[in-house]
Amino acid sequence: MTAGDFRTLTLSCVNRPGIVAAIAQKLFELGTNMTEAQQFDDTESGRFFMRVVFSPFDGWEPSRLIPEMAALAAEFGMTWTIKENARPTRVMLLVSKFDHCLVDLLYRWRVGELAIEPVGIIANHPAAAYADVDFGGIPFHYLPVTAATKAQQEARILQLVEDSGTELVVLARYMQILSNEMALQLSGRCINIHHSFLPGFKGARPYHQAYARGVKLIGATAHFVTHDLDEGPIIEQDVERISHADTPEDLIRKGRDIERRVLARAVRYYTEQRAILNGRKAIVFLD
Amino acid sequence: MTAGDFRTLTLSCVNRPGIVAAIAQKLFELGTNMTEAQQFDDTESGRFFMRVVFSPFDGWEPSRLIPEMAALAAEFGMTWTIKENARPTRVMLLVSKFDHCLVDLLYRWRVGELAIEPVGIIANHPAAAYADVDFGGIPFHYLPVTAATKAQQEARILQLVEDSGTELVVLARYMQILSNEMALQLSGRCINIHHSFLPGFKGARPYHQAYARGVKLIGATAHFVTHDLDEGPIIEQDVERISHADTPEDLIRKGRDIERRVLARAVRYYTEQRAILNGRKAIVFLD
Amino acid sequence: MTAGDFRTLTLSCVNRPGIVAAIAQKLFELGTNMTEAQQFDDTESGRFFMRVVFSPFDGWEPSRLIPEMAALAAEFGMTWTIKENARPTRVMLLVSKFDHCLVDLLYRWRVGELAIEPVGIIANHPAAAYADVDFGGIPFHYLPVTAATKAQQEARILQLVEDSGTELVVLARYMQILSNEMALQLSGRCINIHHSFLPGFKGARPYHQAYARGVKLIGATAHFVTHDLDEGPIIEQDVERISHADTPEDLIRKGRDIERRVLARAVRYYTEQRAILNGRKAIVFLD
Amino acid sequence: MTAGDFRTLTLSCVNRPGIVAAIAQKLFELGTNMTEAQQFDDTESGRFFMRVVFSPFDGWEPSRLIPEMAALAAEFGMTWTIKENARPTRVMLLVSKFDHCLVDLLYRWRVGELAIEPVGIIANHPAAAYADVDFGGIPFHYLPVTAATKAQQEARILQLVEDSGTELVVLARYMQILSNEMALQLSGRCINIHHSFLPGFKGARPYHQAYARGVKLIGATAHFVTHDLDEGPIIEQDVERISHADTPEDLIRKGRDIERRVLARAVRYYTEQRAILNGRKAIVFLD
Repeated sequence: MTAGDFRTLTLSCVNRPGIVAAIAQKLFELGTNMTEAQQFDDTESGRFFMRVVFSPFDGWEPSRLIPEMAALAAEFGMTWTIKENARPTRVMLLVSKFDHCLVDLLYRWRVGELAIEPVGIIANHPAAAYADVDFGGIPFHYLPVTAATKAQQEARILQLVEDSGTELVVLARYMQILSNEMALQLSGRCINIHHSFLPGFKGARPYHQAYARGVKLIGATAHFVTHDLDEGPIIEQDVERISHADTPEDLIRKGRDIERRVLARAVRYYTEQRAILNGRKAIVFLD
Repeated sequence: MTAGDFRTLTLSCVNRPGIVAAIAQKLFELGTNMTEAQQFDDTESGRFFMRVVFSPFDGWEPSRLIPEMAALAAEFGMTWTIKENARPTRVMLLVSKFDHCLVDLLYRWRVGELAIEPVGIIANHPAAAYADVDFGGIPFHYLPVTAATKAQQEARILQLVEDSGTELVVLARYMQILSNEMALQLSGRCINIHHSFLPGFKGARPYHQAYARGVKLIGATAHFVTHDLDEGPIIEQDVERISHADTPEDLIRKGRDIERRVLARAVRYYTEQRAILNGRKAIVFLD
Repeated sequence: MTAGDFRTLTLSCVNRPGIVAAIAQKLFELGTNMTEAQQFDDTESGRFFMRVVFSPFDGWEPSRLIPEMAALAAEFGMTWTIKENARPTRVMLLVSKFDHCLVDLLYRWRVGELAIEPVGIIANHPAAAYADVDFGGIPFHYLPVTAATKAQQEARILQLVEDSGTELVVLARYMQILSNEMALQLSGRCINIHHSFLPGFKGARPYHQAYARGVKLIGATAHFVTHDLDEGPIIEQDVERISHADTPEDLIRKGRDIERRVLARAVRYYTEQRAILNGRKAIVFLD
Repeated sequence: MTAGDFRTLTLSCVNRPGIVAAIAQKLFELGTNMTEAQQFDDTESGRFFMRVVFSPFDGWEPSRLIPEMAALAAEFGMTWTIKENARPTRVMLLVSKFDHCLVDLLYRWRVGELAIEPVGIIANHPAAAYADVDFGGIPFHYLPVTAATKAQQEARILQLVEDSGTELVVLARYMQILSNEMALQLSGRCINIHHSFLPGFKGARPYHQAYARGVKLIGATAHFVTHDLDEGPIIEQDVERISHADTPEDLIRKGRDIERRVLARAVRYYTEQRAILNGRKAIVFLD
């Protein structure tokens, strides 16, 4: 058995007794071993969420997996996915002027830290703006945008997303606000990094807002993109300490470090099927 | 020389060259040694802030200190204070139902960790509500409050503050909103602990707001009280990680720990002359 | 159904496929619902660990629970426990001169934050040393100790532990080294708080060691007690930032805060069946 | 006046009254304004340390600065340096197989975040091992090393350091132990990043040691290099939380993030004259 044999199942359904028993029994019958499992019983919504990593042992019949899981899912009214862990997630990276998140994600991809396959980089600045960045053969798409061309530009992005088989769109400091239509289209498969500790400092220039307010910690927030700007379900947040002596420029500098690691964690959680939409919130199954 | 000989000078004035030289020279002439010094040149407001701890050596003439500092301060247009470090700060503690911050401050006082002298405890619940709390001989004042009696109750509080020689009023989870008049009266000498990571989740029930929003970190904020509710200059903040599985009750529990330590730090900074008002912000001189 | 109906099952056994299925199926058959579940497949030791919280629904027959779980456990060679969540854990608190952890645990107990029932306080200093601490009716045992009387003193402690039905012994800054025999007797049911970030600064006066070494963060460590001093399985650790200007006394002061919260978390994890011994390490199942 | 006019003075001497007054007076006389100042009175060693940032105003006579400071320093027996802030620090980067710290420092240099001028990269692996790294025109030196060639290789490194006018040598995960002679030669101007929370887990494979010990936090440490391996004065440390489920590979991955930011901060502190050797410890003057 190799790493390629591990798969991850995620599911959600209306909660009722017996779900775990049914899932565990089925995975056992199919000749697999549950190596990781997390569950969450959301008493607020009445829904049940589960993530299971499993791997084959003797008696494994791959052809039975999907049909039998589908049957079980139908019985419980489950939304579900199964992903082969060894297959990297196809990711489209969107970026504007600031490239620190892009460069960071590309580095993590190169050293094999993130199980992603970048299928394209879309920027609203020309390639020359990223002269120091080694795209490593990833297709680069320059899609400038103005108020007048926004609709066409977004249509072009969506086309690239579709043509490339993109599974996850990452707004790696992409400083354009997506239209409601586009946000809806990408619902649940688009992650943004916001350079503030949301819900504080929504909107523009959050580090300048933080400076003006005199906070003692600044942060960054990775969230699923929804049509409701800066209100998307939060996947990950982190902070760093600042002082009265820090200028807005210092905050921007310190913020880059926070943004990088928060976005990278969120992408990791997504690729490992740990981050799951739950209405206005995100479940993140950690070990 | 004993610890009692240390004094702390704080000052602020319009910035110009020569301030530090003048202060350092004067303290030297007076027969003292600067053992700690911090300064902040606020380029935004053009004001200069300084904190100096000094102790006498040979030639120290205590009677010269105040008149000569006053003369120097006049020359530079300084706002200034000098405090003897050994003298504890006279503190009035205000509390409502939740006593965790009160209990924590009293413990830190008992073991000599905080250089405070509690001159009174004011509560809008009767003493019986704190049956498990050992007030250690500190006068307890039960001052219930309703919309109709708020003005009189606040007048009574201010009277107690004045009569007791209170230097710092601590709102240790005192769940009443001060009137603008009272906030103004106590400006710069009243610290509140807010149970959220401001400016996120202003207003009531912040932990429930945090739960509803699905944040991944919760926090608390100690700030100077101003008439602008939840907008006072921030002295200290801290956070802890939470997960989707945390209920509002879990947040409240985790929050107690954050509130306790954030408020205790803010009180410490105040008593050590480290926290200084600077318009809408607070300077906090740390080592 | 009330909170009292929740129970927590923990188990470990040699890993093999089908364990989760068997457990989930059995709990379902017994008329219960799994509301929380965590598992860990320790590939190093080949052992499997699980924690399940379950509650009854229709068809629940309490009398079947223990016999049927015992039969299942026998089949898989499981070590297992079931605890009713509503029943507090019986805790014996041991303390020496410094009472900050004791006072903190008692406060958390009083406000209902920790599901413990303190069955006794054992100190090697007389009750007068804790004049400011409200024991709240908990039996206090003064058991002084010298090299010559150590064996008898420990025998007396073990007797009190046995007589009181103690489930967990907490060394709340108890500054005596337990004998190997006593450590073995209490194996898996005794937690200590060490005032350093282990494995750094083992042994005496860790804050002075930290000061001498010039570290930039200090910490504390809660661990299961074993005969191998300062080498027990670690349950929880935390740190705070310090600077070159902090004296050993500052470190001790900052350390008290870390020790308090680290020990309180470890006790919580134990009472919620989250902290499980795994050889030289501890598994801690968090949400 | 431009940024180029800011200078930073650092000094240390035996403590005595009047040092700050003398320095502040002299800087004022020279026509400069102190914009930042930090001091530390080390009561353990009896030495006084100071860092001052100053900028010219009217009457500034640059030619007087060095002679007059030298005269003052002689009077107090000071060790001192003055650096022009606008001039980047000349840095030699040493690296072995793992390039995450190198790549990170180069990125921070490119975006102008670190005031460094990389004068060379020295590696004990050939350039081909870093095919994905854009050296940006920085001279690359492949200096393989074996036990037999260590002396010559180190001599070559020291020659490159001298020829290039290197001010700071950064061991950016350079996995060779420097000889005592070389460590002494580079004393006070060589920073290493150690992949553990020192003093825990000295020596080889610290993440594997951390895994074996079962700690709940891992860290990294940037320190001045001394002949005493893993005992150099600590400049910066940081940690991240791990769990029982993290494998050694997970620790290595999480550790890369900690190493990167800890080393980058230490280099920043050095270039800003904030990190100052003080015997076995390092003073780090932060705002």
